[in-house]
Amino acid sequence: MKKIILGVIGAGRIGKLHVDNIQRYFPQFKIKSIADPELDEQWAKDKDIPVLLRDPDQLMNDSEIQAVIICSPAALHVPQIIACARNGKDIFCEKPISSDVEQIKMALQEVKKADVKLQIGFNRRFDPNFAKIKQMVKNKDIGTPHLLRITSRDPEIPPRSYIHASSGMFLDMTIHDFDMARFLLDCEIDEIYASGNVLIDPIFKTINDLDTAIVNLKFTNGALGVIDNSRQAVYGYDQRVEVFGNNGAVHAENNRQTNTVLSNQNGIVSEKPLYFFLERYKESYIAEIQAFCDSIAHNKPIAVTGKDGLMSVVIGIAANQSHRENRPVKINHEQWSEFA
Amino acid sequence: MKKIILGVIGAGRIGKLHVDNIQRYFPQFKIKSIADPELDEQWAKDKDIPVLLRDPDQLMNDSEIQAVIICSPAALHVPQIIACARNGKDIFCEKPISSDVEQIKMALQEVKKADVKLQIGFNRRFDPNFAKIKQMVKNKDIGTPHLLRITSRDPEIPPRSYIHASSGMFLDMTIHDFDMARFLLDCEIDEIYASGNVLIDPIFKTINDLDTAIVNLKFTNGALGVIDNSRQAVYGYDQRVEVFGNNGAVHAENNRQTNTVLSNQNGIVSEKPLYFFLERYKESYIAEIQAFCDSIAHNKPIAVTGKDGLMSVVIGIAANQSHRENRPVKINHEQWSEFA
Amino acid sequence: MKKIILGVIGAGRIGKLHVDNIQRYFPQFKIKSIADPELDEQWAKDKDIPVLLRDPDQLMNDSEIQAVIICSPAALHVPQIIACARNGKDIFCEKPISSDVEQIKMALQEVKKADVKLQIGFNRRFDPNFAKIKQMVKNKDIGTPHLLRITSRDPEIPPRSYIHASSGMFLDMTIHDFDMARFLLDCEIDEIYASGNVLIDPIFKTINDLDTAIVNLKFTNGALGVIDNSRQAVYGYDQRVEVFGNNGAVHAENNRQTNTVLSNQNGIVSEKPLYFFLERYKESYIAEIQAFCDSIAHNKPIAVTGKDGLMSVVIGIAANQSHRENRPVKINHEQWSEFA
Amino acid sequence: MKKIILGVIGAGRIGKLHVDNIQRYFPQFKIKSIADPELDEQWAKDKDIPVLLRDPDQLMNDSEIQAVIICSPAALHVPQIIACARNGKDIFCEKPISSDVEQIKMALQEVKKADVKLQIGFNRRFDPNFAKIKQMVKNKDIGTPHLLRITSRDPEIPPRSYIHASSGMFLDMTIHDFDMARFLLDCEIDEIYASGNVLIDPIFKTINDLDTAIVNLKFTNGALGVIDNSRQAVYGYDQRVEVFGNNGAVHAENNRQTNTVLSNQNGIVSEKPLYFFLERYKESYIAEIQAFCDSIAHNKPIAVTGKDGLMSVVIGIAANQSHRENRPVKINHEQWSEFA
Repeated sequence: MKKIILGVIGAGRIGKLHVDNIQRYFPQFKIKSIADPELDEQWAKDKDIPVLLRDPDQLMNDSEIQAVIICSPAALHVPQIIACARNGKDIFCEKPISSDVEQIKMALQEVKKADVKLQIGFNRRFDPNFAKIKQMVKNKDIGTPHLLRITSRDPEIPPRSYIHASSGMFLDMTIHDFDMARFLLDCEIDEIYASGNVLIDPIFKTINDLDTAIVNLKFTNGALGVIDNSRQAVYGYDQRVEVFGNNGAVHAENNRQTNTVLSNQNGIVSEKPLYFFLERYKESYIAEIQAFCDSIAHNKPIAVTGKDGLMSVVIGIAANQSHRENRPVKINHEQWSEFA
Repeated sequence: MKKIILGVIGAGRIGKLHVDNIQRYFPQFKIKSIADPELDEQWAKDKDIPVLLRDPDQLMNDSEIQAVIICSPAALHVPQIIACARNGKDIFCEKPISSDVEQIKMALQEVKKADVKLQIGFNRRFDPNFAKIKQMVKNKDIGTPHLLRITSRDPEIPPRSYIHASSGMFLDMTIHDFDMARFLLDCEIDEIYASGNVLIDPIFKTINDLDTAIVNLKFTNGALGVIDNSRQAVYGYDQRVEVFGNNGAVHAENNRQTNTVLSNQNGIVSEKPLYFFLERYKESYIAEIQAFCDSIAHNKPIAVTGKDGLMSVVIGIAANQSHRENRPVKINHEQWSEFA
Repeated sequence: MKKIILGVIGAGRIGKLHVDNIQRYFPQFKIKSIADPELDEQWAKDKDIPVLLRDPDQLMNDSEIQAVIICSPAALHVPQIIACARNGKDIFCEKPISSDVEQIKMALQEVKKADVKLQIGFNRRFDPNFAKIKQMVKNKDIGTPHLLRITSRDPEIPPRSYIHASSGMFLDMTIHDFDMARFLLDCEIDEIYASGNVLIDPIFKTINDLDTAIVNLKFTNGALGVIDNSRQAVYGYDQRVEVFGNNGAVHAENNRQTNTVLSNQNGIVSEKPLYFFLERYKESYIAEIQAFCDSIAHNKPIAVTGKDGLMSVVIGIAANQSHRENRPVKINHEQWSEFA
Repeated sequence: MKKIILGVIGAGRIGKLHVDNIQRYFPQFKIKSIADPELDEQWAKDKDIPVLLRDPDQLMNDSEIQAVIICSPAALHVPQIIACARNGKDIFCEKPISSDVEQIKMALQEVKKADVKLQIGFNRRFDPNFAKIKQMVKNKDIGTPHLLRITSRDPEIPPRSYIHASSGMFLDMTIHDFDMARFLLDCEIDEIYASGNVLIDPIFKTINDLDTAIVNLKFTNGALGVIDNSRQAVYGYDQRVEVFGNNGAVHAENNRQTNTVLSNQNGIVSEKPLYFFLERYKESYIAEIQAFCDSIAHNKPIAVTGKDGLMSVVIGIAANQSHRENRPVKINHEQWSEFA
């Protein structure tokens, strides 16, 4: 079988993670080139990557490279997607595509024109728990969904530098939950009402951001949803989902390092949830690459489309508006109808 | 020890339950009279209740009766509270006091004037799970509360007759959750946003009511809350609560008939939650009478005050308005400040 | 309906418990007399028991008394059973009947001759968890039972006085588990191998007793069983059972005071098991009286027979022998065949 | 860093698993040669293994090969260990070393003489659950261990061919549990009593084997243990462990594919345990190679020694004798004292 030749743009934490996963689990892929202005060359050599670049443009011109994994800072995603598309390369791009909806539209139009594949890195869809819930909902195991509950709480607030660069909680953190909501119910969000506050660290007030939120969703099919977020759950990364329908409900408990339970005078003590996204979503990072591989090698449908990437940002922006104006905000779906 | 002589008004399901519990568990109380226009006399005789009445007014004039348990239809609560107060009797009254806020005010003013005790039957506060959570929150076991989540789903929709007599989901069903929210966080609700839909049975549409809802709460201390309701959870009565704070979280799982678990080819199967409120809240109906007894016999503070009964209705009315106008609604606390 | 008139012998902790339960839950029963050489008369008067006796013999001669609850010290059970039988009274007797098998035989022969009812107080059979397992096993929900596991650990070692009066762990404590084994599998034990040690408190060595044990059972139908015991589980009363069969397994988790769960930096903490037998088996003490009532009032079969009381002692004695001789010991069933 | 050059003997299911794991996770290792009389050459080529052999002897003579992974049939282990030892190669050998104790002794003596490393493939020691329990026991989190319970049940009986080649349940299946018992309590077994039966499939009777067993253990430190085994748990691979001590207890629940829970009219349904050892012990197969790598590269102590391999067989043979003679059997530790 002929291998699919890959280039990788961006070799930070997530870029390295994808390289490791691809080399370990996907013999169908071969990483030829990696580009990062601050490339860790020793690491890249240890990984036996033949071509080490500082400038991603060089990678675009390599006609042998069939697909590109984009793990650069978000601000660079749109131009890099466009460059890849114009060079006929299939694209896996980390989320978010951009925080600017017009920019995203431009990128998606180029992808459409070039007829290349584009998968967005909403890895949580591939988490075994959530993928199972999706499958059960799809199978009508719970009948028609009526209520969706997502709890998504980080174990600790991000570093100061991250906070200052952030586009805000709804676009940074809740964006995953918006995607999860659309994914699990396979339905668009019609209206959103976002309430939030700064309860953990006053720094979020100084930059006009939030650290705690509850967001209401109305789906176009009439179902209701709610997301609760906190930037600091001292007991660890809290990632739970529940879908309730007319024939039952399904939910996912948190994952733990082990299933050991200690019984002593203080109580019956189970382990805390896995610490953070790298631990919790380890398998999902592998499975999303599997899906990307399948869509290229076997021409299967894209698992997370550009439209998915777009909508999560649209909803995040609506959440910001809702919170600012303290009122429910409708999502206009007409204007994105060109992207299926 | 001298027994406290009681009268009971209303001998329907809840009235009979209170009589049973009082006779079984509270030797300090003696039920002298029971009044119900449609009294089941055989039952009352079996219970050895000396005085059987059709008209509750007769009970008011019996100066030996020190306290009255009001279990009549809600529409009669206010006049009966007023009559009891004017006759110097302490009162335990089932919820809601009334669905008319002005009526409630009148009743509370009379109670205040007469300086009698009034406890409202928000029994869920006495559920061992929720009472434990309250105590843990109060002890600061989770630090400062940031988020409150209440799931409250009935096992099946009520009979047609009940639905038609109902004052609507928020005042009938969610009213308990509004009280629970105030109770657990020991804090007033500042603003409410109620979203709902009819997803289970079209009958609710015909009477302009709901069967599914998600309600957002903002507390005056800045904490956020959410209640989700359904009138039909096919797996049984779903009554869960979670309070999340800066030092941890506490939640309560549903109660089950037994802790048996069956493992077979279909999976690992635990029992469903206890069927409905009579099963789930059995102990809480006893404990609320204990509290009433303590407040009379030992002059302890009232566990669920008239103000508590008032506020749950005020919030329910605000929820109705919020849903009707699809916008967050502020709760005006000034106007109830006379009731502490 | 005519009430069944009862006498109670022994008003210690368990005697008082039965009196409370009978008065609260069984209007079909009326307690006329209570006999205890050290009777707490104030308590008995508060309970409105008409006849207070020091000498149980007086109770035997009261022809109005139809049934007797025997809660005296174990050494008195046999003569009291015999006296009751000779006076035609139905009997509920606390376990053990006696630690002397010949004595037990004598008692059972008298009961048989007098054709009165005798129920033994193996209350754990009525625990909702274990009763549910029994029912599931009987329904063949797990197919044919292959393995039985009983974990039975006390929360703390008994007082010195109790230890010195004890007939040893197998006859004091494991006797309940022997009965549970026979009950759940509805099958006799063919052979037993008992291993034990003193690991908690050297006092047990001084009186030639044990504090820790694992006991193997072979049932006459070929199934295998194991009981593990400790006299001190610091996390509380550990009472679990599992039955494994060719179509599945069923087990019961411990009961807890509430279903609350605290999540914090130390882990996810559930409550400890209910403290000890009075808390854990509260409902079973009521249900066993219900069964006794049913067998008298409605002539239903005895739920825990004299034979059951006998066999638990026979097995306990075999366990002692097995441990002493460090070898498996067969149970001879021929010699008890007269008792069905 | 210089890579450690490996040879692999045996490329059946487990051999292939080790090759995959080594290539994925251990860049410190390089597999140079693989030997199997029925080698799947296409697979080996895909894995880029340079030297493909039919005869393992050729591998012994390759002085570049520093360590050998032995995954051949058990009957070949001893001669291959000896050959490796004589050629100065470190050895990782699948269990059991042999079912003949004298053969094992010979192999261990050669290993000792040659001063090479030998690790036995008791992978379950590296299971995250059991490793955590070991660590907690070692840390005295539960104080001094008093009781050990191991439940070890296969999901289905092995194929006919396997059954006929088997050295019996105690040496095939329970051998893992014997090793787990020694591992968790870090203590030798002094005496064993094995009870068993054929309850699942009569085939086991025809070959004088068992399919269901309960095995009692007495440890040299006075602790007691019990293992229960079944060859067929229809709900999946049941692998649980509990250690109970004077300060508490720790146990491990089964692992499941996901933590999703379905609530419907049939109950609250969690997933079954992971299907069988390849799924359940996936991580442990990686971790045991990590340990082997560490002991070679960093001269760390062997994690599972030849003595461990020996003792599990010694205990298994004692279990057979105990069951045959229906009596407890002492383990003689003197005769193995030369192996530390």
